[in-house]
Amino acid sequence: MKTLFANADILTEENGAFTTIHKGYLGIENDRIIYIGAAKPEEKYDELRDFSGKLLIPGLINGHTHSPMTVLRGHGSDQNLQSWLFDYIFPAEDKLRSQDIRVGTDLAILEMLATGTTSFTDMYNFTADIAECVLASGIRANLGRPVQEFADGKPEDNFRVKESLELFKAYHHSGDDRLRIDFSIHAEYTSTEALVRYYSELCAENHGLMHLHMSETRTEHEECIARHGKTPAAYFRDCGTFLSPTAAAHSVWVSEEDMDIMAQYGVTAMHNPSSNMKLGSGFAPIEKMRAKGINVTLGTDGAASNNNLNMFEELHLASIIHNGYMQDPTVMKPDYTFAMATRNGAIQQGRDDIGSLTVGKKADIVAIDLRKPHLVPNLETLATLCYSAQGSDVCMTMVNGRVLYENGEFKTIDAERTYALASESVAYLGI
Amino acid sequence: MKTLFANADILTEENGAFTTIHKGYLGIENDRIIYIGAAKPEEKYDELRDFSGKLLIPGLINGHTHSPMTVLRGHGSDQNLQSWLFDYIFPAEDKLRSQDIRVGTDLAILEMLATGTTSFTDMYNFTADIAECVLASGIRANLGRPVQEFADGKPEDNFRVKESLELFKAYHHSGDDRLRIDFSIHAEYTSTEALVRYYSELCAENHGLMHLHMSETRTEHEECIARHGKTPAAYFRDCGTFLSPTAAAHSVWVSEEDMDIMAQYGVTAMHNPSSNMKLGSGFAPIEKMRAKGINVTLGTDGAASNNNLNMFEELHLASIIHNGYMQDPTVMKPDYTFAMATRNGAIQQGRDDIGSLTVGKKADIVAIDLRKPHLVPNLETLATLCYSAQGSDVCMTMVNGRVLYENGEFKTIDAERTYALASESVAYLGI
Repeated sequence: MKTLFANADILTEENGAFTTIHKGYLGIENDRIIYIGAAKPEEKYDELRDFSGKLLIPGLINGHTHSPMTVLRGHGSDQNLQSWLFDYIFPAEDKLRSQDIRVGTDLAILEMLATGTTSFTDMYNFTADIAECVLASGIRANLGRPVQEFADGKPEDNFRVKESLELFKAYHHSGDDRLRIDFSIHAEYTSTEALVRYYSELCAENHGLMHLHMSETRTEHEECIARHGKTPAAYFRDCGTFLSPTAAAHSVWVSEEDMDIMAQYGVTAMHNPSSNMKLGSGFAPIEKMRAKGINVTLGTDGAASNNNLNMFEELHLASIIHNGYMQDPTVMKPDYTFAMATRNGAIQQGRDDIGSLTVGKKADIVAIDLRKPHLVPNLETLATLCYSAQGSDVCMTMVNGRVLYENGEFKTIDAERTYALASESVAYLGI
Repeated sequence: MKTLFANADILTEENGAFTTIHKGYLGIENDRIIYIGAAKPEEKYDELRDFSGKLLIPGLINGHTHSPMTVLRGHGSDQNLQSWLFDYIFPAEDKLRSQDIRVGTDLAILEMLATGTTSFTDMYNFTADIAECVLASGIRANLGRPVQEFADGKPEDNFRVKESLELFKAYHHSGDDRLRIDFSIHAEYTSTEALVRYYSELCAENHGLMHLHMSETRTEHEECIARHGKTPAAYFRDCGTFLSPTAAAHSVWVSEEDMDIMAQYGVTAMHNPSSNMKLGSGFAPIEKMRAKGINVTLGTDGAASNNNLNMFEELHLASIIHNGYMQDPTVMKPDYTFAMATRNGAIQQGRDDIGSLTVGKKADIVAIDLRKPHLVPNLETLATLCYSAQGSDVCMTMVNGRVLYENGEFKTIDAERTYALASESVAYLGI
């Protein structure tokens, strides 16, 4: 099956830099992009779609979320962090059943598709349920089952480690490679050193990717220093964790030395501006990390601390809050912020076949309807995307060559049924 | 004409605090709210509208914008402030014609209506053109013609002052009081002291409201101290400006003493988080101002420095960035942020008949469609509005009892024609 999108603006890349083709053509064959150009291709296509007045962009990649937490959206908002976690989130999480996880994941996927996210990296329990939702929905994802250990049990007996390995064997590269399984350590403060060392070795042996929380809050960062005499980044390095490609979610409180470690080991710094602002965590040193050559990506964190999964909101925040914090309007440029949400996210996910609209890549394509008051005039594509556009401007989301969302309609998930099931979960949870 | 909205959630107020009525009824007669309650009123209505699954909220009030600047949206983004103003904005503004102002204002009103803004406070030249657009569109606004004086001309000969007075006489309270004319001093650094004193007296004589820029950037604030030996707030106080109810846009760099002055004189602090972040101006001390009893409101600033006019984006930003800056998740609470965008904005505009959904107030009503993935579950109305909701969740905007926008359709402005005219303006401006 070959489809040609005609008369659309197309955000593509040339020599590694974003460039916009105006009123151009993009052709796909099954799951791949086979043509991008200003001229109509001579080749014959099965289907021609007139996309006048629309802009095609690469699908956004959400680098860090906990998708089932949508069922806890808004629960205990505006408490201090301690009370929010211990009085609201943990007790509710403790009651979650497989069905709550599935409805939460479906809610998350609905929102992500409607707002232009085509791939996401997730960390949550009940990972097999999340995996089934990913496979059924058609979206792309890297999922991790976070390991933790509070007691002094043997690492090889930790049931989370076992689950993580089972998932890896059962699901890695499944669904035409849409689904991959990452390794995941929840955080330094929720594991023993023995577990971190053991599990990091497992990850390296299996050539896996590692996904973890690191230096999200000042308290966490400083308590690690008090506990181990070193920062979380130095701790993970010394435990061998960084011998696998690692994504360190948040990286707010990393020191100069930490950033040097991250650069040396190719650790991705995963930025979650909404969550960092809402929870009062602070401002990650994006500009410094960028200058040191660290791969910086963008994500939403879970809906409980955001409270949504809208990558356009994160694009906007990442584009402006650092200017405000540094008191300099030139700190963040749209070409960099947009790369965080696309190209850099593909690097984090270990996927070289997504992240941009270029010939040969997978057809993970999002269309923006430019006929909106706030997108007129559209003087410069990247500025429009980072400063003016909304997630709701997305009019089509295609993953792996398949349209999963178009003009308000979801093709693979029953939205109304999901809302009804979410109400049931909320009633059960008593939140 | 009497219309009853049925089965809607309604964000109303009780003893000055927000409260939500679930599946309730809101009745209007012509331009007024005549009933709000959980029970169906016994009275007969001409029209019954089933608003199941929708939430009614008071129309949002944009406290500070320069609406015609939508035609310059994205022009010179990401330059430093000096270059942005002098190489991009000022040269383009210099070329603006009456028709560009009208298309820009229409674009602004389209976006504001689509994202739930029912009233706005504006400061821009060609104010009569803006006034005509406001009257024709059905929206509510307070407009100011900013005065400036760089030379040493006599204040009474300043053509801007004359225009301002003429506007006041011609348009104040027009359009069934939808349109009011404020007095407006652009800023301390763009006027002579003689002009500020003269014009402030005129404002007080006419019982007008004053709208000005104050302490937006550190440079502006410090240069004022160097020039006058006092801060902008002290300068305006000493010039008699604050003898009229004043809205001081930005108020980022105000000192403790400045805040005391503002509290003493009832000066409104007008907060523009997107603009302050994007331009690198800094973080206004909202929490301190609130503690001192200052009326704090919310606005978008112009589209050239935002780059849109979406009050839901400002609500979100104001709700989270101060937590991030203060490293405390309890700094900003949704009930306060939402008041900034509604009740406090009404105080700024000198209008006691808008700002909340309560019986007797004007019917400036916005409906939110709650059947969206990111609004499920909806555990707490204000948290949903400040953290999860998008401008695009607005499905109906009513001003003064008249529906001006519903489900993507604009009732008073031709959107497609406006987009076409905007393209013409952009071509003429050569941007």
